[in-house]
Amino acid sequence: MKPPYYAVIFTSKHKLYNDEYNETAKRMNELTAKQEGFLGIDSARNEDGSGITVCYWNSIEAIKKWKENTEHQYAQQMGMKEWYESYSVRIAEVTKEYSMEEV
Amino acid sequence: MKPPYYAVIFTSKHKLYNDEYNETAKRMNELTAKQEGFLGIDSARNEDGSGITVCYWNSIEAIKKWKENTEHQYAQQMGMKEWYESYSVRIAEVTKEYSMEEV
Repeated sequence: MKPPYYAVIFTSKHKLYNDEYNETAKRMNELTAKQEGFLGIDSARNEDGSGITVCYWNSIEAIKKWKENTEHQYAQQMGMKEWYESYSVRIAEVTKEYSMEEV
Repeated sequence: MKPPYYAVIFTSKHKLYNDEYNETAKRMNELTAKQEGFLGIDSARNEDGSGITVCYWNSIEAIKKWKENTEHQYAQQMGMKEWYESYSVRIAEVTKEYSMEEV
């Protein structure tokens, strides 16, 4: 991906994983990838229940639109009530990118 | 942390974990935290060997200085040669942050 583009950095600590969480997470991943302006996603989870997901987008408007998506809003509510002990969301503008091959 | 500040998003896929990697990673975490301008770090690793580390900094200059640190440069070289199958580094400016309590 060629900067500039935008990243949403989502860090979380789970209090609970259940089937509903796993299904919702899967559904949200599928739905995210269909949104206009979606560029990609990276996700990693530790055994202790903490995790990081970074989504990449081509505009701040695309991020806002996804945040306001009705099904996503419902998932966010469920996340706060049921699954997360805590989480943080950071919106950032990616200005530079390089990978192993280019170093 | 109050935006604006800067994030380095490091995503990687390992080909090898060994004692030397684990020692170096530990040493780099300790050393990073001592750098001027360091604000914090989040890290998560999947069982398949892929992972994400996000470091937060108060300036681009602090990021550059850490990248050029001699011991860190040696670790980067080792990483490329021995431990990583691939990796990407993204530099981003965090413009907005909120956490569960503030939503």
